[in-house]
Amino acid sequence: MSYVAPQKYHIKVRLYNEEIAFGKGIAQILELVELHGSLAAAYKEMGMSSSKAWKILQRAEADLGFPLLKSVSGGAHGGGTEVTPEGKELVEKYRQFEAQVQECAANAFASIFR
Amino acid sequence: MSYVAPQKYHIKVRLYNEEIAFGKGIAQILELVELHGSLAAAYKEMGMSSSKAWKILQRAEADLGFPLLKSVSGGAHGGGTEVTPEGKELVEKYRQFEAQVQECAANAFASIFR
Repeated sequence: MSYVAPQKYHIKVRLYNEEIAFGKGIAQILELVELHGSLAAAYKEMGMSSSKAWKILQRAEADLGFPLLKSVSGGAHGGGTEVTPEGKELVEKYRQFEAQVQECAANAFASIFR
Repeated sequence: MSYVAPQKYHIKVRLYNEEIAFGKGIAQILELVELHGSLAAAYKEMGMSSSKAWKILQRAEADLGFPLLKSVSGGAHGGGTEVTPEGKELVEKYRQFEAQVQECAANAFASIFR
């Protein structure tokens, strides 16, 4: 058995201040909350438990220092949950960051392992 | 509390064929085996258990399809463990890949979050 280059790679991108706080999972939760207007709808679509979703949300808000979600009452949908403007900005920038890192990784992988 | 950009990021880089198999930990084990000529010296320096070290080594070799370590007997050091040529090539390429990804990430983070 001689060297054969691995065929795949995986890159995990996370953001934080003091403790690893914001990654792919919470970004997806926030995107689904924006889509559905409901946290329960978001974590259910991800197959995530309520307690897990709350835990990662609270840990992220504590580390980031601003709220990611807010409750809305009344209105056409009879209330629900929304992503805060700060949360939307963070998700957008996280996705930009992740996309740039993944693009670099694809180029580097091709040049080194192909 | 308004948006404040997170100050730090973390990028995890792993290689595999079928299952996540090769990352920072095993790369460090192999580098320390090269340094010390002993697997025990390597995992002890990392504060890793023997069973954990063997588990990730066996899982990686099974997924990669080539051996990462070989036993050597006799010689000046009275035998020990060496990294195979294939293992050395993989570690070198993993470090190149990781370095390029981290450099991209540093630039992207600075442009998006600073």
